[in-house]
Amino acid sequence: VILTVTPNAALDITYEVDELVAHQSHRVTAVRQRAGGKGLNVASVLTRMGHPVIATGLVGGAVGDEIRADLEARGVAARFVAGGGCSRRTVTVVSALHGDATIFNEPGPELTGPGWQSLVAGLDSLLGEATATVVVLSGSLPRGVPDDGYAELVALGHAHGARVVVDADGAALRGALTAGPDLVAPNRAELARATGTQDVAAGVAALRELGARDVLVSCGADGLVLMPEEGAGWHARLPVPLSGNPTGAGDALVAAVAAGLAGDSGWQRTVQDAVAWSAAAVLQPVAGEIDLDDVARLAPQVLVEAR
Amino acid sequence: VILTVTPNAALDITYEVDELVAHQSHRVTAVRQRAGGKGLNVASVLTRMGHPVIATGLVGGAVGDEIRADLEARGVAARFVAGGGCSRRTVTVVSALHGDATIFNEPGPELTGPGWQSLVAGLDSLLGEATATVVVLSGSLPRGVPDDGYAELVALGHAHGARVVVDADGAALRGALTAGPDLVAPNRAELARATGTQDVAAGVAALRELGARDVLVSCGADGLVLMPEEGAGWHARLPVPLSGNPTGAGDALVAAVAAGLAGDSGWQRTVQDAVAWSAAAVLQPVAGEIDLDDVARLAPQVLVEAR
Repeated sequence: VILTVTPNAALDITYEVDELVAHQSHRVTAVRQRAGGKGLNVASVLTRMGHPVIATGLVGGAVGDEIRADLEARGVAARFVAGGGCSRRTVTVVSALHGDATIFNEPGPELTGPGWQSLVAGLDSLLGEATATVVVLSGSLPRGVPDDGYAELVALGHAHGARVVVDADGAALRGALTAGPDLVAPNRAELARATGTQDVAAGVAALRELGARDVLVSCGADGLVLMPEEGAGWHARLPVPLSGNPTGAGDALVAAVAAGLAGDSGWQRTVQDAVAWSAAAVLQPVAGEIDLDDVARLAPQVLVEAR
Repeated sequence: VILTVTPNAALDITYEVDELVAHQSHRVTAVRQRAGGKGLNVASVLTRMGHPVIATGLVGGAVGDEIRADLEARGVAARFVAGGGCSRRTVTVVSALHGDATIFNEPGPELTGPGWQSLVAGLDSLLGEATATVVVLSGSLPRGVPDDGYAELVALGHAHGARVVVDADGAALRGALTAGPDLVAPNRAELARATGTQDVAAGVAALRELGARDVLVSCGADGLVLMPEEGAGWHARLPVPLSGNPTGAGDALVAAVAAGLAGDSGWQRTVQDAVAWSAAAVLQPVAGEIDLDDVARLAPQVLVEAR
């Protein structure tokens, strides 16, 4: 089984309004809400693609109840840990007139030491029960958790014999590297933020200095570049990029990588799937969803080359 | 005991941001949330002022759990009815730079017939158990409820021997009048919306044509005008109006009126209290709160005259 860990899960609320005007009162014409956070999207995509997966992470309070209920309704297996306070919400206001979004991100609970340790203990117990081959650590760390929080979880995964994938940004990504995660998957902007360089090869080298092993860099319309610790690199892309909703494309990519590692598919097949799943996610209106027919249609179109 | 009925309760969420810019992403620096809806504010003020009160209404879903939890934490007795779907939220975004608020009001659940009937049955059972002398019906009706929804609740209160106060707007206010509520308490804008005239005397006459009995019109800084069905009218005001937070001032006024009716205080004392409680509420940062010292200080200052 694959485990995804979301330390800072959220309830993503979307409001539709006719037009957003600052300092006025708005009648919301439609409300949608959905469990969010990158690791939950990864688990959702893996579930849709038929891969055994359990989502874990810190979820609490009444907002946490809504997150649990949504995942249950969507058929995504979850075993969350409480102890981290009430989960955060995000509110995205979509204006019918302009079509674009105004976003409000709650800061989320500030974690104390015991809160974080309850997540560590919960993951430890889950790893003891389920034979997890791959653990995916995704998204931001809650406030109050040290930057090297993910390093502790990487080491825990390794202690249980699992391979560990980290999809994080900035200090949380850098902090994970000391424990040698098997694969990190920054996009180009995240790679630049973590290393201070815009150059992909130099950025990957910098991550490896810090402890990274295999590095997969997603480059949006240019597809992805995989730089394994050993052996040749790979570049994979669609001949013509798709337009659509980029939210969640990175999570679908990470889901494909986790599935590839879990199935020992080899890099060539894994990067092909990663591009196909990511592109199929772009065709969905919300993050965490994917259509198997889209994947089946797109996968043969992916151009894969060693580099 | 006084019963307050809030058919369309809400969870009021306030976000602080540095500056609201449409079509951008915002880090929320502080989150506050509080049970809202006019009848809950009335119950909260009565509780603070030491009057026995029970809040009822339709509350449901995970948001409803947050409403219940907040009232419990504030010591406000409540006995809600489920069956109306998940309660609505309001989100108020306060910009530190401008100080003013941008508001998003969720539409709330659309009620079916059984949902409304569960509220009616719940109120009937509560009226049967508790010896309620006054019932207060406050705020908007949920979507899907006919405009005369409040008339059914007025008749139910009367059948149990209680006096019924209605604080509603527009069609919900007009729809309540056919059942002859003992007192309605529009502000000037609400009176104009319900009757089509800006003139207070003409507006009150129009309400009475529709079935109103005692009418109390709140006029903001000008205090209030009470036009009883029988006997002299009253005008009450502070010599110098207070500045502050007007949200919830009307609810404090209604709370004082309900307390006056419950205690048979007579009009002179009731309108004096109504102005004092309302002014004291203006000094509070949130609706539903009141300081007894403010009330004690303000009440002797109120100017009351027959008219």
